[in-house]
Amino acid sequence: MGLMQHCGTIGFDADDTLWHNETIFERVHEQYRALLSNYHNADTVNRTLFATEMRNLELYGYGVKGFTLSAIETAIQLTDGKIPADEIQRLVMLGRDMLAHPVELLDGVAETVAQISGARRLLLLTKGDLRDQTRKVEKSGLAAHFDEVEIVPEKDESTYANLLRRHGVDPADFLMVGNSLKSDIAPVLALGGCGAHVPYPLTWGHEKLDDLPPAPGRFVELGSVRDLPPLLGL
Amino acid sequence: MGLMQHCGTIGFDADDTLWHNETIFERVHEQYRALLSNYHNADTVNRTLFATEMRNLELYGYGVKGFTLSAIETAIQLTDGKIPADEIQRLVMLGRDMLAHPVELLDGVAETVAQISGARRLLLLTKGDLRDQTRKVEKSGLAAHFDEVEIVPEKDESTYANLLRRHGVDPADFLMVGNSLKSDIAPVLALGGCGAHVPYPLTWGHEKLDDLPPAPGRFVELGSVRDLPPLLGL
Repeated sequence: MGLMQHCGTIGFDADDTLWHNETIFERVHEQYRALLSNYHNADTVNRTLFATEMRNLELYGYGVKGFTLSAIETAIQLTDGKIPADEIQRLVMLGRDMLAHPVELLDGVAETVAQISGARRLLLLTKGDLRDQTRKVEKSGLAAHFDEVEIVPEKDESTYANLLRRHGVDPADFLMVGNSLKSDIAPVLALGGCGAHVPYPLTWGHEKLDDLPPAPGRFVELGSVRDLPPLLGL
Repeated sequence: MGLMQHCGTIGFDADDTLWHNETIFERVHEQYRALLSNYHNADTVNRTLFATEMRNLELYGYGVKGFTLSAIETAIQLTDGKIPADEIQRLVMLGRDMLAHPVELLDGVAETVAQISGARRLLLLTKGDLRDQTRKVEKSGLAAHFDEVEIVPEKDESTYANLLRRHGVDPADFLMVGNSLKSDIAPVLALGGCGAHVPYPLTWGHEKLDDLPPAPGRFVELGSVRDLPPLLGL
């Protein structure tokens, strides 16, 4: 814990760390399964949609627009082309609703980020769609607390190495806070940094990870973002 | 011309400045009009699609995925929901082809960028989809010539002001090179910088602009990117 307490730069993930995201996707998944329930059971719909998303990830990247296109493709496939156009239009509208959804901060985020920003340098590091993530940062009311906002196509070890170099941050002086072991914690630990994992009740299949690199004293799991200031000695 | 010659930092737009883009969209538009030709004439298709794109721009931002979603929505609207699902799937595939399209550099770009990069600090400044633009930068073979690559959701005056501040560039020492008067030239001239307009044979309706701010000695129109090294005294 000693190491973490002295980290001068704190990185925050955004989706499901600062604000709700996966719950919005999950509600859309429910409507999607209902729309296709005359054709297939929920398991088949879930499995096929996930497979389409994974196949398209390289081309589409993360975010709502790619999800919507994958959902349309899957619906056509699962109905053997029998889905009527007005139901496809409903999928387009579901995607649009997601993009227009209000930004709902997680409990404790506003106070915690404000408190830490007075004492540490804060970076917001998120992957996904540039337009949508920019919108969410703006609507969150948190932008002024962050020294830098970086939206990147992928959050892996080389991304973090580049970002930290670009901002002149020594990995050993860096603590990353996020809900995804795969995107927020593992790559930072591998670089010699610290990670604070704050699990979200839902995790997208693609973000699941079983093993972390060994990082004695550099990794902690928190029940809430509210546990962060005490961890930093604030 | 004297001012421009001494600019220490040169910004390059990407789509239709470094590599072909609008020609790819135009080929897709042709196939789109053909697909809908049983329902409406080309003018109506063009006009309705453009209106949908403009209405969705705030939510979708720029790029192929948003274009594909707007094309699907427009096709459903223009056929009163009668378009069959397999034709919608064809639109999804057209979008995918655009995302997988090889990056084709404009004539003279490879040599010119290589030549200037030895003598000036080079920034690549592009708007659009993060995943797709990142892919194109990587595939272009030009990345190593640029000191920084910035992909932003919009290229307006405040974006340029922020980017130049972030990279410690005095606007008076900055020359922006691009095909769009609206996104590449006008905002930079307004900040006191220089602009070199290299028109592309096709211009998307949204990028058209009639008037530039007065900028005596700070604006030039070039026939080709090859005219840039002489402009810089190289």
